[in-house]
Amino acid sequence: MKVTKKIVLSENDMPKQWYNIVADLTNKPMPMLHPGTKQPLKPEEMEGLFAKGLVEQEFTTERYIDIPDEVRDLYRIYRPTPLVRASGLEKALDTPAKIYFKNESVSPVGSHKLNSAIPQAYYNKIQGIKHMTTETGAGQWGSALSIACKHFGLDLDVFMVKVSYDQKPYRKSVMRTYGANVVASPSNTTEVGRRLQAAHPGTSGSLGMAISEAVEKAMTQPDTRYGLGSVLNHVILHQTIIGEEAKKQMEIAGDYPDVVIGCFGGGSNFCGISFPFLRDNLVGGKQTRFIAAEPASCPKLTRGKFEYDFGDTEGFTPLLPMFTLGHDFEPADIHAGGLRYHGAGTIVSQLMKDKLIEATDVEQLESFEAGVLFAQAEGIIPAPESTHAIAAAIKEALKAKEEGKEKVILFNLSGHGLIDMASYDRYFAGELKNYQVPEEEIAKNVAKLEKLA
Amino acid sequence: MKVTKKIVLSENDMPKQWYNIVADLTNKPMPMLHPGTKQPLKPEEMEGLFAKGLVEQEFTTERYIDIPDEVRDLYRIYRPTPLVRASGLEKALDTPAKIYFKNESVSPVGSHKLNSAIPQAYYNKIQGIKHMTTETGAGQWGSALSIACKHFGLDLDVFMVKVSYDQKPYRKSVMRTYGANVVASPSNTTEVGRRLQAAHPGTSGSLGMAISEAVEKAMTQPDTRYGLGSVLNHVILHQTIIGEEAKKQMEIAGDYPDVVIGCFGGGSNFCGISFPFLRDNLVGGKQTRFIAAEPASCPKLTRGKFEYDFGDTEGFTPLLPMFTLGHDFEPADIHAGGLRYHGAGTIVSQLMKDKLIEATDVEQLESFEAGVLFAQAEGIIPAPESTHAIAAAIKEALKAKEEGKEKVILFNLSGHGLIDMASYDRYFAGELKNYQVPEEEIAKNVAKLEKLA
Repeated sequence: MKVTKKIVLSENDMPKQWYNIVADLTNKPMPMLHPGTKQPLKPEEMEGLFAKGLVEQEFTTERYIDIPDEVRDLYRIYRPTPLVRASGLEKALDTPAKIYFKNESVSPVGSHKLNSAIPQAYYNKIQGIKHMTTETGAGQWGSALSIACKHFGLDLDVFMVKVSYDQKPYRKSVMRTYGANVVASPSNTTEVGRRLQAAHPGTSGSLGMAISEAVEKAMTQPDTRYGLGSVLNHVILHQTIIGEEAKKQMEIAGDYPDVVIGCFGGGSNFCGISFPFLRDNLVGGKQTRFIAAEPASCPKLTRGKFEYDFGDTEGFTPLLPMFTLGHDFEPADIHAGGLRYHGAGTIVSQLMKDKLIEATDVEQLESFEAGVLFAQAEGIIPAPESTHAIAAAIKEALKAKEEGKEKVILFNLSGHGLIDMASYDRYFAGELKNYQVPEEEIAKNVAKLEKLA
Repeated sequence: MKVTKKIVLSENDMPKQWYNIVADLTNKPMPMLHPGTKQPLKPEEMEGLFAKGLVEQEFTTERYIDIPDEVRDLYRIYRPTPLVRASGLEKALDTPAKIYFKNESVSPVGSHKLNSAIPQAYYNKIQGIKHMTTETGAGQWGSALSIACKHFGLDLDVFMVKVSYDQKPYRKSVMRTYGANVVASPSNTTEVGRRLQAAHPGTSGSLGMAISEAVEKAMTQPDTRYGLGSVLNHVILHQTIIGEEAKKQMEIAGDYPDVVIGCFGGGSNFCGISFPFLRDNLVGGKQTRFIAAEPASCPKLTRGKFEYDFGDTEGFTPLLPMFTLGHDFEPADIHAGGLRYHGAGTIVSQLMKDKLIEATDVEQLESFEAGVLFAQAEGIIPAPESTHAIAAAIKEALKAKEEGKEKVILFNLSGHGLIDMASYDRYFAGELKNYQVPEEEIAKNVAKLEKLA
């Protein structure tokens, strides 16, 4: 046994604070704007929708935020997660690079989403909130918030995009096992849902529609708040526990990453693994590269525009300064549901603008090819989302081989694919295709944005 | 944070040896018999079917067997597994009992089956075997052997019971992702498969049929051996790594179990967690209780008979001295596929006969009720098989509460249920029933056994 395969931490070594990168940025992100007044959004304007503790985190400029004991207590169900040396993958690629991955797939729902679900339910609970609402597409976020709400004694309504509700019945069963109330969206339980049903008879729904329903319910029902699984600053903050742990573990391994990679939907897992290491670039003189791996079919960072845009497709949310394909952009029906989002979070967008991070796009077939290679080499079948990070890591490892360099690569395995095997089936059956978004489609959608803010 | 939630070991603390309980038994198990001669089976008679290294382990009386480095190396993908304090479940039950579980669900395939799949593939590999064959019902064993064979460069043919092949497509996809060749059984790729198809047109298959096909292929194809996922001594041996780890972890926790519990199909996970602790009863004066939790619909230990019987339904295997419901017994269509087996391994049967272990039966509805309670309290959705162990642990914890005793309970969580959510769906829909096997059905099947040996 030449190398240590897994670096595990005891629960006493679990980080006690989340890291807020805003504190260390020279160029702070631009403010969110109120969609009506176009003035910077005030914290109190968000408190009808989100719990106060979360709104406070959304606006804070503190560098480190204490993780409450009750949250750490529940994190311990699956955290600290292992840092794994991908020795099987290294061998398969015959690369001199050292490849490490943070294994977030060991959580009970199989992904990193619990890292924010737990504190979100907690801050709602301590405020006396009784109900939460949310939307879910692929189902990872809905499952995570379901466990968290059950633990803290909150009711949860999940609006699940109808096409997923019908095609992914097992995700629904997971949420129901945890006691959540799951409805197909658009539903007849909200005003906007009924309106959407009437306007689009037989619609299979969309994440935008589901967000609108969850938001309406949170705004109109007493003692109710909404929860979002990515994009917002407080979500990113919670996810930094991934990188904080990984830093301790890389130190034990005796290595430091030259490249850090995460797949990219709204930013939660990419930022989670990256920001604690990025701090060492900002204040410690390191020169680590950070690569966000997004699907070629939804290339907001590589081909989108930095503009103020809505977070949802209906235009209900505040305006966010972000790299975006436009809120009207309809991502192709690719098999990485968690990456089908038109925009990026505000912090990560600012970092991209300031060239503090990079992005790369990955074709669908390349992502599954990487996923199968990884599964056979490391045993774990990755989530279709995570295969994008693996594909990018493989590219870097092969480049290191060409250059004969012993580069250290770290990527985040955001989740396993055991509930997404239908996607692998379609890949093996040759039914999946690559898809490059036509330039004119992007141009058309982003052109509408200039007059928004 | 009052108690330590998870006891984790570093990979250097992973046990270096498997434990063979036969060495410590006063009453050794009776020998397997050749089905033709009715004489004790000789090792060389098994070597056409199983790799030599495994046959040697099947017959050994050595107390501890070294785990080869290559096997430990691969174990490290997921081992050591955590020992978890079920503090959420304790709270939900309001019991003074301390409940621990060994979390074998963290393996890439979601169950303990890899513990034997890896050494089985290894011993085949070092013998120069090129192909393996096996059968799978629920798919856990087939998935595990698929990863292991891929790693050691062996081809694998999995004969999957046709009804599972059709109803559990995702299990099939998992095996294919790992590179295995999966066919629905009965198939037209074997003599016996074609014969079965002709004799039972439109049959949905059975584990017995699938075993027959896998055995035929192993016996007739060059450089090919067969692998079995439970029952046999060498499989049980490999699974003792569960209990060996758990002993180290319980010591760190500062507790020793009063009761050890595992669900029971052929015995692999129950024996795996139990035997290392049972040794302390046999040679160390401890008085721990060991409870095998079997489904009421397949009650071999609680209501079966100790007799020589075949391991398969077709009567192709050696005769094994076992607690059995008779090889003609057809288990009801319950949702814990891994527990639908008519007999128990020979060692565990001898222990049962000598009252060194106990057994309890669990009704299907009680098992799912326990599974949902556990999922909500601990976050992990258990496999339908594992819910039987949980139900038995809950009974013991509630008894402790009645008696006001601070009992220490340890059970094995053999796997998670994320690929078995269809079973939970049917439970929530009220479609599942309890089923007690009629006494006359058992009597009829075991009556046939007396003349076998």
